[in-house]
Formats: sequence, structure tokens, C-alpha cells
Amino acid sequence: MPAASKPPLSPATGEFGKRVRARRETLGLSQEGLAENSELHWSYIGQVERGQVNPTLRNILRIAEALAVDAGELVAKLPSE
Amino acid sequence: MPAASKPPLSPATGEFGKRVRARRETLGLSQEGLAENSELHWSYIGQVERGQVNPTLRNILRIAEALAVDAGELVAKLPSE
Repeated sequence: MPAASKPPLSPATGEFGKRVRARRETLGLSQEGLAENSELHWSYIGQVERGQVNPTLRNILRIAEALAVDAGELVAKLPSE
Repeated sequence: MPAASKPPLSPATGEFGKRVRARRETLGLSQEGLAENSELHWSYIGQVERGQVNPTLRNILRIAEALAVDAGELVAKLPSE
């Protein structure tokens, strides 16, 4: 099964990933560009956007900074598990 | 050196922990009570409040739910690393 078809870990990681992808696309950034700006691996960014990882606070903050949004916006009102 | 005197991992984890502690105290909850409500270990809650762990999104959401606040509030405008 290709990685892209795996389901998200949880509704929360799925929604978080959608927000990251939407913001990245709004900025016209590639996954590689976001990876570089956030000093995270491009494959990790892909997993985040598909909701397949449970990101740490540190990585949430790095991603938010690279997307020029506050981390609070990325995390607000996520569904509980 | 006792655990309580260890410095936070980062300014962000330190500030996050202060917000968790402040909200817990506002609610009149003990660390054990918060641990029980969030289904996390009391020693982990202590580490979170001292900023000594880098919590995952899943645990941030559990803690926020147990404190009856939105996770976005706990994470908003944290200092970058």
C-alpha cells in the first residue's frame, strides 16, 4: 500500500496536516521548501500533511514559523481523539 | 540535582508548562487530578509543567481537554526556539 493512502493517526493529526498543507499551498511553497525553512526532513513534512505522525511541540512551532502563522492557529479547535 | 531545579528544554516548553500549571491551579486541580483527567502519568504532568518535556500534539490535546481550554490557547504565541 503506498504511503499516501494510509489513514491519519487520528482526526486531530489529520486536520492538523490539512491545515499545514493548505497554508503551504497558499504560500506557493513545495514540501521541500517547507522542509528547508523548518529544518525538518521533507519526508516528515509529507507525513505531517497526511496526519501520519504525532508532531511534537517543537516541530509544530518550527512548522508554524516556516509558514509565518502562529502555532495557536494550527492547533486551535482540533477534534479530540 | 533535584528534578525541579532542571531548566526547561526551551523557552517554548517552559512557557507552555507555566500556562498548564496556571490553568490547573485556577481550576483547583492537583497534578494527580490533571493526570487522571488527561489519562497521563502524574510524573509526566510534572515534567510538562517544568518545561522538561517536548509534548506531542496528542498529549497537548489531552491536557487541554482535561483543563477545559482549547489547545490553541495553550500554544498561542509561544516563543520560538
